[in-house]
Amino acid sequence: MILSALLTSVGINLGLCLLFFTLYSILRKQPSNANVYAPRLVVKGKLQRNEFNFERILPSASWLRKAWETSEEELLSVSGLDAVIFMRIFIFSIKIFTFAMTIALILLPINYLGDQLTLADFDLPNKSLESFSISNVNDGSIRLWIHFSAAYIFTAFVCYLLYSEFSYISSKRITCFYSSEPKLHQFTVLVRSIPVSSGISYSESVENFFTEYYPSTYLSHVIVRRTNKLQKLISDADNLSRRLLHMKSRKSTRQKVGRASFLGRKVDLLDQYEKKLEFLVESVRMEQALITGQEVPAAFVSFKSRFGAAVALHIKQGANPTEWNTETAPEPQDVYWPFFSASFMRRWISNYVAVVACIVLTVLFFGPVLLVQSLTHLNQLETWFPFLKGILSMKLVSQVITGYLPSLVLQMFQYFVPPTMIMLSSIQGYIARSQIEKSACYKVLWFTVWNVFFVTVLSGSILYQTNVFLEIKKLPNVLAVAVPGQAEFFIAYVLTSGWTSTSSELFQLIQLIWSFIERNILGRSDDELEVPSVPYHREIPKILFFVLLGITYFFLAPLILPFILVYFCLGYIIFRNQLLNVYAPKYETNGKFWPIVHNLTIFSLVLMHIIAFGIFGLKKMPLASGFMIPLPVMTILFNNYCRRRFLPMFSSYAAECLIKKDKNDQNNPTMDAFYEKLVTAYRDPALSPIQITENIDGLSAPLL
Amino acid sequence: MILSALLTSVGINLGLCLLFFTLYSILRKQPSNANVYAPRLVVKGKLQRNEFNFERILPSASWLRKAWETSEEELLSVSGLDAVIFMRIFIFSIKIFTFAMTIALILLPINYLGDQLTLADFDLPNKSLESFSISNVNDGSIRLWIHFSAAYIFTAFVCYLLYSEFSYISSKRITCFYSSEPKLHQFTVLVRSIPVSSGISYSESVENFFTEYYPSTYLSHVIVRRTNKLQKLISDADNLSRRLLHMKSRKSTRQKVGRASFLGRKVDLLDQYEKKLEFLVESVRMEQALITGQEVPAAFVSFKSRFGAAVALHIKQGANPTEWNTETAPEPQDVYWPFFSASFMRRWISNYVAVVACIVLTVLFFGPVLLVQSLTHLNQLETWFPFLKGILSMKLVSQVITGYLPSLVLQMFQYFVPPTMIMLSSIQGYIARSQIEKSACYKVLWFTVWNVFFVTVLSGSILYQTNVFLEIKKLPNVLAVAVPGQAEFFIAYVLTSGWTSTSSELFQLIQLIWSFIERNILGRSDDELEVPSVPYHREIPKILFFVLLGITYFFLAPLILPFILVYFCLGYIIFRNQLLNVYAPKYETNGKFWPIVHNLTIFSLVLMHIIAFGIFGLKKMPLASGFMIPLPVMTILFNNYCRRRFLPMFSSYAAECLIKKDKNDQNNPTMDAFYEKLVTAYRDPALSPIQITENIDGLSAPLL
Repeated sequence: MILSALLTSVGINLGLCLLFFTLYSILRKQPSNANVYAPRLVVKGKLQRNEFNFERILPSASWLRKAWETSEEELLSVSGLDAVIFMRIFIFSIKIFTFAMTIALILLPINYLGDQLTLADFDLPNKSLESFSISNVNDGSIRLWIHFSAAYIFTAFVCYLLYSEFSYISSKRITCFYSSEPKLHQFTVLVRSIPVSSGISYSESVENFFTEYYPSTYLSHVIVRRTNKLQKLISDADNLSRRLLHMKSRKSTRQKVGRASFLGRKVDLLDQYEKKLEFLVESVRMEQALITGQEVPAAFVSFKSRFGAAVALHIKQGANPTEWNTETAPEPQDVYWPFFSASFMRRWISNYVAVVACIVLTVLFFGPVLLVQSLTHLNQLETWFPFLKGILSMKLVSQVITGYLPSLVLQMFQYFVPPTMIMLSSIQGYIARSQIEKSACYKVLWFTVWNVFFVTVLSGSILYQTNVFLEIKKLPNVLAVAVPGQAEFFIAYVLTSGWTSTSSELFQLIQLIWSFIERNILGRSDDELEVPSVPYHREIPKILFFVLLGITYFFLAPLILPFILVYFCLGYIIFRNQLLNVYAPKYETNGKFWPIVHNLTIFSLVLMHIIAFGIFGLKKMPLASGFMIPLPVMTILFNNYCRRRFLPMFSSYAAECLIKKDKNDQNNPTMDAFYEKLVTAYRDPALSPIQITENIDGLSAPLL
Repeated sequence: MILSALLTSVGINLGLCLLFFTLYSILRKQPSNANVYAPRLVVKGKLQRNEFNFERILPSASWLRKAWETSEEELLSVSGLDAVIFMRIFIFSIKIFTFAMTIALILLPINYLGDQLTLADFDLPNKSLESFSISNVNDGSIRLWIHFSAAYIFTAFVCYLLYSEFSYISSKRITCFYSSEPKLHQFTVLVRSIPVSSGISYSESVENFFTEYYPSTYLSHVIVRRTNKLQKLISDADNLSRRLLHMKSRKSTRQKVGRASFLGRKVDLLDQYEKKLEFLVESVRMEQALITGQEVPAAFVSFKSRFGAAVALHIKQGANPTEWNTETAPEPQDVYWPFFSASFMRRWISNYVAVVACIVLTVLFFGPVLLVQSLTHLNQLETWFPFLKGILSMKLVSQVITGYLPSLVLQMFQYFVPPTMIMLSSIQGYIARSQIEKSACYKVLWFTVWNVFFVTVLSGSILYQTNVFLEIKKLPNVLAVAVPGQAEFFIAYVLTSGWTSTSSELFQLIQLIWSFIERNILGRSDDELEVPSVPYHREIPKILFFVLLGITYFFLAPLILPFILVYFCLGYIIFRNQLLNVYAPKYETNGKFWPIVHNLTIFSLVLMHIIAFGIFGLKKMPLASGFMIPLPVMTILFNNYCRRRFLPMFSSYAAECLIKKDKNDQNNPTMDAFYEKLVTAYRDPALSPIQITENIDGLSAPLL
């Protein structure tokens, strides 16, 4: 790709970004779009619906100021620790790449002044971007030692940042723990594999066990029941009632406007639906009465103190290690109830199926990626489809195709990956939605790293062989040849998948269209509005992929850095705005997503070292290549230290913290009310009295 | 090797065994040998020293009856659970190989009736042993399906035995726990990485921490101090006092017999030594006073209940995961005190040094092994040393050399391995002697398996290549060719290293000579007698190696089985006798050695499956070869289940057991005395008042 193609791509994306920004700043002020752009505020009732004024149709940047000015404490109180830590990823990346930029200011002229790539003309717009990359530095040049030092200094800086960030977040985690209200899941453990005792039910068994061994701390328990049938019935009833509601509201509107002529058939249908609903509600009621017998050998056991729950959690309970297994209870709203309905065999099999499906999907996806890659090699496309020759020879078309289209297509493909991975994770046997999301996050991340990074890099090079990963010795050289060659593609990728896609996050096109359809065609009301939560499994891998790109390319092709930095700044401001207005947390993991960020950064660093090792070898600097080896070793040792130092703090709280917090609560007057709540908190929602909304007729009471 | 060479070897070893048995049965009745053959009874004072009678010089088998008649309960009460489990290895092996023998009765005629190895003559004494092995079965013969079924049936039987044995031992472990007296280490945890607090000592820090967070269960603590200097001084003083004692006793003897002429110089030396000892004792006293300042950030913290200790053990204590680390405390006499004197850096480095040294030793040992192996190929030896031709052509010499010498030499080499491995393990950073011994046990085991099994097997074959383990695909074929060829060598190995060496364990030649020297030349008295403990790190790998041999060879060359079975029967009766008379346990791990046995048996089974896979391939039975694959998979799944089902019971006790036991103790009147003992139990022995024995002068009081 030449510089002009890059500029075309920058132009297109910048235009799109500006368009999105402008549209957003106008559309967000229209009250009808509040459901899309500020559902949080709508639900909380914080949004005052002001009358029409002229300002409403002018673009403005007031939202920018508000997003900028919100402090971390405010964000914490509004959106929880997970959101704060999500924003820390941006801050962390901005810090890294600002530092990288200052190093790049030294590297860029050195690269440019080399003449390894003897170029015919010195015409800047047509000059290949490669002249800014390390490929342009002469072989064996003493200047390469500057690149060498850059790798060391940058690694040291990133490790220092990683350490301070990990330390900051884990201390934040403990601070939040100390300052938080009592949380239900802190007092509860999930007990599984309750042994069968003759003559008594699981529930009695649990009661006997814990009253005998934990008489002073045991509070209560809720046995889990198999409710898959019931869940199905309730969701049917819910759908039906919603449809009924919609029909009634239309009927009343039409009656108001006097169009009663075609109502005969409709009324019949309405009656029919109402009867069906009644039948369904009756079935639910019967099923709920019946289900009390279908116990699963699992129970949520609650204790009077956090420390009591921790003791039950960490000490093996039963003399037989396969019985009375305890694990941390998720928050009640985080429990993934379908897990308990599946039989052991089904869970066992679907776990394997999910793993295999995930691997197959990840590996086979390189087909589409290769197709996309062929677009960057126009001449190849011309030989395949000769009839395109005429169109492809046009300058603008060729620039759009090489500069913009490949990454757009790639991005479209990737759109379907996160939902697929969530689906795979959910059949893998996790008991909490947050665990499912975290697992999907890892899956999407490795999918992206493999398919977007490795396959793109290796397909672009002539050396592409699938078995390169089996010959570890050759890997550094192969990467050193292939990675710098793909710098232009990744710059374009940052522009499309980074800039534009993040701006479209602000604009929320799909939600906008959907909301329009809902309101005007389906006629749904605001009351059914569901506030979305941040799709971490989609966003975190996307952000981290740019971290990977930035770290691996920072000394190969520093020209990518400004684009990445702009992306992170955009993302920072946009996601702050979204967290304040759009997304509300569905559960709180207290920052359990951070280790993913840490791991990926360490992986990126080591990958960068491997590429550097290869590059210095290719550039005839065996000494520099050799001195590169201690760097990944030290990085991995550093990582091991961090894992030992911080990771245990993310899995559970220490006795010190738990006991302190318990002592503080002893004087808390609300604890009695809390204990009362605790007793019923972990009841399966399917067993609660069924709530059917019929508020058109003013009827919103529970039917049961 | 031909049958006659085997018979020679059997003759030699049987003769040696009988000789050892006879000598033992006479020598054990001589009161002067009681220190060698019954040190346990001597120390306990149970041995009545009867007068001379004629019976004393006649061999008798009364000890056999006694060893046989002792029940498992008696053994348990006398020697503890570890000894019982040590004996279970023999029982387990006898069960396995009795079953294998019944299968072998079917396999042997099948092997013998094949004619794959077309032998010139049918002269039984000269017939090669190979005609009894699977190599003799015709390629593609339908009879090989019998071998195939044998592998399946045998694996199923061994797995069944493994399961029931694991289950028996873990239930025994819990029974012993319930029936045991309160043990010091059950109430104690070792706390390491105590953080530095400004102004207060580690001891105060521990006191504050545990009184704050465990007010109801915390009892006391003993801070660990750096005592390496002191230990050195005490051992010096001890040696000197012993020498002094010896000199005094000689003096008094000589004075009694009236030889006072040469005493002038001696008396000077005696005075000199006495002064030196006084000085040393003074130094120890000063050092003991000084050392109170040199605290190490580690402490033994004792609790009022077992459950209290378990809570502190299993829950992370400090908010910073690298501080307040807890681990199970070993028994007081099991603590390896030098561990605490080593600095962190020294421990870290010596750990790596130990691992590397162990690997290097294991790998490089194949030099001597290859040398030994060359002995089995006489013609090669003749070409190397032509002058030996005359001697080697003698029939008896050649039979001795091929049949007996190689395994004898190998055994001599191996004699030095266990002490080396103990040495390596002790610098690796274990806090307990039992852990060191267990680690050394694993090291010796893999050393034996690698050097005696794999190197012997592969060196004997033409296909020997060091990199065969890097090409996993070829491994089954290489093993299938090589393993059956070494059957004769291993039969000889069972004879020497099994039969004779176990009988010599009974005879205790080295101890006998040493005791003779001590008594008659060094003139030591019985009071210094130290009862040895079973050298598990030497014996368990030896026994397990025969299990490996038996399992891998059972269907290849069933002729090895009777020899192995005889070995196990011998070992069973001899070690029972030794446990009753010679060895006393130094510490009790409650059967933590059993998982080693389990793991090795699983390894042997899988190895057998791999060889079978290769053999059936070579014998042109691709179907049988293919159907062999599920067997190792199922075995490994079975192993995983066992690890989940039983292994956690070997690392710690469950809450259920701990609380039950604690409740039982509440009515125990001796608990107060026990708590008093607990407070000081974990004091470093180097800090106790120094005990110098000077009982010749009637002076045996502590000097401090």
